[in-house]
Amino acid sequence: MLSRKASCNTHGQDSYYFLGWEEYKKNPYDEVKNPNGIIQMGLAENQLSLDLVESWLESNPEATGFTNGGSTFRDIALFQDYHGLPAFKNALAGFMARIRENKVSFDPNKLVLTAGTTSANEILMFCLAERGDAFLVPTPYYPGFDRDLKWRTEVEIVPVHRSSSNGFKITESAMEEAFEHARNQLNRTVKGLLITSPSNPLGTTMTRHELDQIIHFANTRNLHVISDEIYSGTVFDSLSFVSIAELALQHKDSHNKNDLSSRVHMVYSLSKDLGLPGFRAGVIYSQNEAVVSAATKMSSFGLVSSQTQHLLSSMLSDEKFVRKYISENRTRIKNRKQMLFSGLQDLGIKCLNSNAGLFCWVDMKKFLKSNTFNAEMELWRRLIYEVGWNVSPGSSFHCIEPGWFRVCFANMDERTMTVALRRVRAFVDRFF
Amino acid sequence: MLSRKASCNTHGQDSYYFLGWEEYKKNPYDEVKNPNGIIQMGLAENQLSLDLVESWLESNPEATGFTNGGSTFRDIALFQDYHGLPAFKNALAGFMARIRENKVSFDPNKLVLTAGTTSANEILMFCLAERGDAFLVPTPYYPGFDRDLKWRTEVEIVPVHRSSSNGFKITESAMEEAFEHARNQLNRTVKGLLITSPSNPLGTTMTRHELDQIIHFANTRNLHVISDEIYSGTVFDSLSFVSIAELALQHKDSHNKNDLSSRVHMVYSLSKDLGLPGFRAGVIYSQNEAVVSAATKMSSFGLVSSQTQHLLSSMLSDEKFVRKYISENRTRIKNRKQMLFSGLQDLGIKCLNSNAGLFCWVDMKKFLKSNTFNAEMELWRRLIYEVGWNVSPGSSFHCIEPGWFRVCFANMDERTMTVALRRVRAFVDRFF
Repeated sequence: MLSRKASCNTHGQDSYYFLGWEEYKKNPYDEVKNPNGIIQMGLAENQLSLDLVESWLESNPEATGFTNGGSTFRDIALFQDYHGLPAFKNALAGFMARIRENKVSFDPNKLVLTAGTTSANEILMFCLAERGDAFLVPTPYYPGFDRDLKWRTEVEIVPVHRSSSNGFKITESAMEEAFEHARNQLNRTVKGLLITSPSNPLGTTMTRHELDQIIHFANTRNLHVISDEIYSGTVFDSLSFVSIAELALQHKDSHNKNDLSSRVHMVYSLSKDLGLPGFRAGVIYSQNEAVVSAATKMSSFGLVSSQTQHLLSSMLSDEKFVRKYISENRTRIKNRKQMLFSGLQDLGIKCLNSNAGLFCWVDMKKFLKSNTFNAEMELWRRLIYEVGWNVSPGSSFHCIEPGWFRVCFANMDERTMTVALRRVRAFVDRFF
Repeated sequence: MLSRKASCNTHGQDSYYFLGWEEYKKNPYDEVKNPNGIIQMGLAENQLSLDLVESWLESNPEATGFTNGGSTFRDIALFQDYHGLPAFKNALAGFMARIRENKVSFDPNKLVLTAGTTSANEILMFCLAERGDAFLVPTPYYPGFDRDLKWRTEVEIVPVHRSSSNGFKITESAMEEAFEHARNQLNRTVKGLLITSPSNPLGTTMTRHELDQIIHFANTRNLHVISDEIYSGTVFDSLSFVSIAELALQHKDSHNKNDLSSRVHMVYSLSKDLGLPGFRAGVIYSQNEAVVSAATKMSSFGLVSSQTQHLLSSMLSDEKFVRKYISENRTRIKNRKQMLFSGLQDLGIKCLNSNAGLFCWVDMKKFLKSNTFNAEMELWRRLIYEVGWNVSPGSSFHCIEPGWFRVCFANMDERTMTVALRRVRAFVDRFF
């Protein structure tokens, strides 16, 4: 009786995710009440700097009320213009520029507000592709893309494989291979390429060389490029971050439809950088007027609450707070990452060198019984039941090499991380 | 380069809407600054009782902060479970029951939160129909349905025509005719019927007899029924309101897939009844577990901000406030409607008898030069430019009879309504 979509089980969250989550919920770690419980290390949440937001709210109680900025409750309650509150869009554009060291600026009129990047990415698929068309996505990638890009749009993802042999960098040959595979074997029209930089799960940003290759590849084939930069504020080595905005979103106008800047689009949200996933404040940025116009209309299906826009416009307009937050948040992420990174290194476990993100991409190949995904699954079970680590295996990110795991570090306090490291040490001691 | 969807102009808002809105923005009425400006009477917004919400907020300042109900800012900021805040769902279920005089109750576990009914209706289409399938929708209907039901889902709307001959009641023969037309002429699979009760633009609720007919019709053909009850709190003659929930959503469980209750779904939001369209707080209610499950997953594309859920859960848990609000809001809507209704009646202009809504459905046939939609368009232009009334013509609601107009009355104060009535009187005097 229901539609195929409703009956479909591919919602971008695989059995690992559900199983891990279920096991964690049954037996969650608590220092006092359940010291042998499972530690949740599978959640890419940023809790490291929420105290900064909390103290800002304490010092600015009027921001949550309805009298600041000249707006009354009435103005805010009734505001449902899908163009968004101008004050919020201005403040958000400024915040996005500051995260990029003001090397770029964003025109508030080219922002489309969306209820998180979940909605932003789906809207871009609806705008850029027909049902049955394909988008190339480098692996390993965020499992939610299988839901966001494919589920309701019926667009296909064709993976561009990346491997440890070159530090998971994208190559022209891998892009070409995926493109030819999509066209010749799958008989799909490729409409574009979606990259995530900084990457979830890798914790790395794309180099300028990689971005140049991608842009060249897209340009010669008339493809769109979407850059999901949801983790851009987590880059703790900021000099190394090159935003797609620096390379292709700085033209003032692009009436020329073949102009590259009309085929490059950015996606962002405050969920990771400010640690506010519940607030559903996402955005699309594009120089393409037709995309901005259609996406704005589609944003009707997931507008950002005007109450939330109102609060965030106050917070992000406070330049002193923003400067301090961005810098302190980076330092805290860097320190926490270093704690996990060197803790594992001391045990002979290597992580991919990273400069961003809320997780390490950990090489556990030496713990595998064989070089297979079955062995990865077996190790994952041991990690959850013996070590008490709920982490995410590489296969859930469509990684083609068994033995990699994403380990999140920003959703817990330092004491919990200490316990987590102690546990894995005991596991390694038992193992060898 | 873009998709057909992005290039498509059918976003459910026709030229009247845009033209009227543009003209209004160029020359908006203001008692002091622009007394000859256009009065916005095309906006179904409820501003009549916002002062009650405002005073509740003044008396409950902690509700907009993050310390009430034991939740901290941290809990709220991080909350992104698509099942929603339990406190909010409980309070919302209670509010929905109270609007229906507690003749029915709602199980919070069968609620799916969505960013407004725009999203709720689209999600139900994705769940119940395949691309190319049809839903029957009685005319005149809310123009936004052309966007919400059709645009991204590629579902078709097949109109069930209603006319003034029987007071715009739905008939079995009209439903049958639409069904046969969809099947035989359009070659479509009909998946269901979507009704709006109270109706926008009619301002009437469906009678028990109409609902019985609809349910019988759907039952014999295995169709789904969606009842959009977004205006349910505006029913000022509450005894006359029969919610679909009373007839078909009261079974405890429905494991039987052929059971009627698994094919009946309700849509609601707080946008109209509480006057909070900016907050994007909508909901789907269904007894069908598979629909609830799939719709909950799809709600990822338009979640309700956790900050907003948090505030509304406090407000709707205050039973004293809720009781007073519902009753006072009804009285104010009734009085305002009566002011417009009898003001027009005194001029010999008739409205459809109504018991709900934020608008009157006004018969202006006698001002038409001919019984055509061109003449309706001409009258509409005179209303906007000569009378200074921005209203919505029946054709924008797919009405099949020329000469009906929806005139909104709840988005302005009483003085403005007085001016509006004075203006139409002058127009009538000039006309005859």
